[in-house]
Amino acid sequence: MHILITNDDGVLAPGLLALAQAMRQLGTTDILAPDHNWSASGHVRTLDRPLRAREIKLEDGSTAWTCDGAPSDCVALATCGFFSEKFDLVVSGINPNANLGHDVTYSGTVTAAMEAAIIGIPAIAVSLDAPENHLGFLDYNVAAQYALKIARATVKYGLAANVLLNVNVPYLPADQIKGIQITRQGLRVYHNQFDRRIDPRGRPYYWTFGEVPGGIAERGSDIGALADGYVSVTPIQLDLTAYTMIPDISAWKWQES
Amino acid sequence: MHILITNDDGVLAPGLLALAQAMRQLGTTDILAPDHNWSASGHVRTLDRPLRAREIKLEDGSTAWTCDGAPSDCVALATCGFFSEKFDLVVSGINPNANLGHDVTYSGTVTAAMEAAIIGIPAIAVSLDAPENHLGFLDYNVAAQYALKIARATVKYGLAANVLLNVNVPYLPADQIKGIQITRQGLRVYHNQFDRRIDPRGRPYYWTFGEVPGGIAERGSDIGALADGYVSVTPIQLDLTAYTMIPDISAWKWQES
Repeated sequence: MHILITNDDGVLAPGLLALAQAMRQLGTTDILAPDHNWSASGHVRTLDRPLRAREIKLEDGSTAWTCDGAPSDCVALATCGFFSEKFDLVVSGINPNANLGHDVTYSGTVTAAMEAAIIGIPAIAVSLDAPENHLGFLDYNVAAQYALKIARATVKYGLAANVLLNVNVPYLPADQIKGIQITRQGLRVYHNQFDRRIDPRGRPYYWTFGEVPGGIAERGSDIGALADGYVSVTPIQLDLTAYTMIPDISAWKWQES
Repeated sequence: MHILITNDDGVLAPGLLALAQAMRQLGTTDILAPDHNWSASGHVRTLDRPLRAREIKLEDGSTAWTCDGAPSDCVALATCGFFSEKFDLVVSGINPNANLGHDVTYSGTVTAAMEAAIIGIPAIAVSLDAPENHLGFLDYNVAAQYALKIARATVKYGLAANVLLNVNVPYLPADQIKGIQITRQGLRVYHNQFDRRIDPRGRPYYWTFGEVPGGIAERGSDIGALADGYVSVTPIQLDLTAYTMIPDISAWKWQES
């Protein structure tokens, strides 16, 4: 087993180290992760400039690689030539905030796993539902143990082509987590607002702000599972076709429009 | 009808002007588009810095706004406060290259429309399948007329919540286009490679390269429709759940892993 670890928070994020340490129980790991935070960066491929990569030491003395591209660039670079051995699994995370509902197309954590799935490698994105107002230290151990459990099962049972797993872990002690629930993507509720301000030279600028995204905690959804104290495992596919709408749109009369 | 026009090539791209001119036949248009090219930028929300917007004149003397954010930032800013009137439709494009298959999560053109759908506004992404080796001038008129036709029908018939349309138009004279086909997302074939080079100071850097992405021209898919000379209209949804995998994964035995 050869496992690539990446994330969107940057190679020195504690969530990445906890994930790498857990994954070493499953196989040989290599790390190639961004050199800075790419949260809400989306599914990026850097085309107009080359990427730089350099070797660094992590807190536990182990070796990692970091590069100046996005999480999805890291996955492409790592799996398409940078490391000579092929990868059997890509695991991205552990993100300190949950990636639920519509977050998936924004999330660097999830789009790194999407990139792996497009390249044809089984992939898992792992996020921790830490409280928004946490002050620094987060314990990633419980989430890392669930990531290991889910990675083991993924290797054993396999994933269909073009499918990845989006895993979210409640921020609870291990004995308060009720188990794993296989879920669908829930409905996020965003509160987009912009604050218009004037700079000292009299020119306007616009800050995005708004309450922390909420969500509808429906049973069976990722949001519902977390709210009930379960780890959510949502299979995500790269085929975004809204199949149920094809018959409707096929009946539209174009000659009248 | 109040229509927002944006793109990922930058506000001065000729595809945007052609699109805006066509959409003026359907309603009042406002333009807020990026100030530079954001191709392959993904679904971005700029959180850590404010956005700047400024008014400019387009080639036909009309007024547009441009901002230093990504296409999806432009949509959020435009629809969440920058313009005081609400929008009924967001149209993104016209991109000079097709956005087919797995391109949809990378594409700034498509993710701008995704942002609108998340905000709750019907949205259409429009791309032209221009030859890769074209040398500058492209005729966007045929694509703009199809965009208008499809926008009219979208307004008339409506789209389900969290669904947008991804439109691709062959680069053919109007009388050689066979019509509109409602399609599913096809299978792109990417050729990811990295070229390792050494800079004059002896440090390596990595260029992504590779043949132009291909695709499997299956009947019923966006790629197949374009190959047959049709305009493809693919309904895209924001729910990425791989529903067919939920029963499989629900049968995984966690205690053994």
